[in-house]
Amino acid sequence: MNKPTNERRSVARFAKADVKALLFDVFGTVVDWRTSITRQAEAFGRRHGVSGDWAAFADRWREGYLSGMAKVNDGADEWKNVDQIHRDRLDMLLAEYGFPCVEMDEVAEFNRAWHRLDPWPDSVTGLSRLKKRFLIASLSNGNVALLVNMARFAALPWDCVLSSELAGRYKPDHGVYQYASSILDLRNDQVMMVAAHDFDVRAAAEAGLRTAYVSRPAEYGGNGPVEEVVKEHFDIYAIDFHDLASQLECS
Amino acid sequence: MNKPTNERRSVARFAKADVKALLFDVFGTVVDWRTSITRQAEAFGRRHGVSGDWAAFADRWREGYLSGMAKVNDGADEWKNVDQIHRDRLDMLLAEYGFPCVEMDEVAEFNRAWHRLDPWPDSVTGLSRLKKRFLIASLSNGNVALLVNMARFAALPWDCVLSSELAGRYKPDHGVYQYASSILDLRNDQVMMVAAHDFDVRAAAEAGLRTAYVSRPAEYGGNGPVEEVVKEHFDIYAIDFHDLASQLECS
Repeated sequence: MNKPTNERRSVARFAKADVKALLFDVFGTVVDWRTSITRQAEAFGRRHGVSGDWAAFADRWREGYLSGMAKVNDGADEWKNVDQIHRDRLDMLLAEYGFPCVEMDEVAEFNRAWHRLDPWPDSVTGLSRLKKRFLIASLSNGNVALLVNMARFAALPWDCVLSSELAGRYKPDHGVYQYASSILDLRNDQVMMVAAHDFDVRAAAEAGLRTAYVSRPAEYGGNGPVEEVVKEHFDIYAIDFHDLASQLECS
Repeated sequence: MNKPTNERRSVARFAKADVKALLFDVFGTVVDWRTSITRQAEAFGRRHGVSGDWAAFADRWREGYLSGMAKVNDGADEWKNVDQIHRDRLDMLLAEYGFPCVEMDEVAEFNRAWHRLDPWPDSVTGLSRLKKRFLIASLSNGNVALLVNMARFAALPWDCVLSSELAGRYKPDHGVYQYASSILDLRNDQVMMVAAHDFDVRAAAEAGLRTAYVSRPAEYGGNGPVEEVVKEHFDIYAIDFHDLASQLECS
């Protein structure tokens, strides 16, 4: 019967005494990429007289991101940043969806749809609460330019924009998390990785970081798959950034 | 008689149409390192019963930074970040000033005096004005951890913390400026380097960037040396960040 109480005590102890910085996954954790991409794709289609299932378009675009990064980490591809990976996939999708000839500048502009993603409703206010107590930084596979432009677009109050691009490999490679601790001059156990994806949080734990899992059941839409996780795998399990801030005793 | 008018027109044109990001030198340009270090050194001395000329101490500490970086760029030293360079010099200075045995933790803490520097009075409000129109980032030789901690201490509203540390060499190596443009996915001529030091601004110009020189006559105290420059060497010459913001037509 005492176990939950002890666990909560343990969370409070490490959080107050040791954790100095929080690193955030971005796509899905901080921003609602699927709704934002679906909306921008629909507008782009309309402008070019093309109709289609734009949520499916968004999902297919996202799949290209995941497979593109895996190829880099496996050594099958040279380093490509996420803007380039998105662009490769976009060229394929435009052909597949039957787009007529589109000006190159316009394709480049549409590819930057990923720089213009809306935050979840709790993201900006939650991050602002957390920032009062902790150094907050992105740690996304998105490239630096993408993340900085997105932060300006969505008013994300990062202290620092960190990206896998700076480490030269993609999450969940352990080196990415350790690079982030190192560049902040902190020990791995002074840094907490915050993400809405089990693979990301667990890789961070294996790399020696503290972890918080934030549930984002709407990431794939109301009817999409919701990740099932074992809460005990994480130092903190939270339902949004305000819950995270409260568990970390932020005012 | 028409020349000044034409020049001003030319400045306004490139600024509005092309410049997307401003990169800022930090020590001396954004923060008043000398006053802040002098004050912290004086307090440190008092705590350990040591008296001395603490402004001279600050200057000597700063000299170690400049010579330490030159050794790295010349290939005489392996890469050392600025915290390490500061620490090397601090150990020397503590002996020189006759400090008794000081706890290692306390020396490490005092070395982070460089993470706690006060901004010039116009820095935060000026940067906030500039941020509305431009992406603003540090581009300092200070390491990332130092710059992020300083930004939190001084409330510097960076969109992004960039550092020579990420490029693996120190300014005025041209590669540092070009690295910054590249990681932001901008052309060199879409980026403007802002600094209070002629060598920094001119190296940025040689690397292909736009330039703004901001005069900081108080950097070395009221009686210290003031840099003499040729205003025509820069795209913009400004007396502080508000003047810079006005010349760049920020509201």
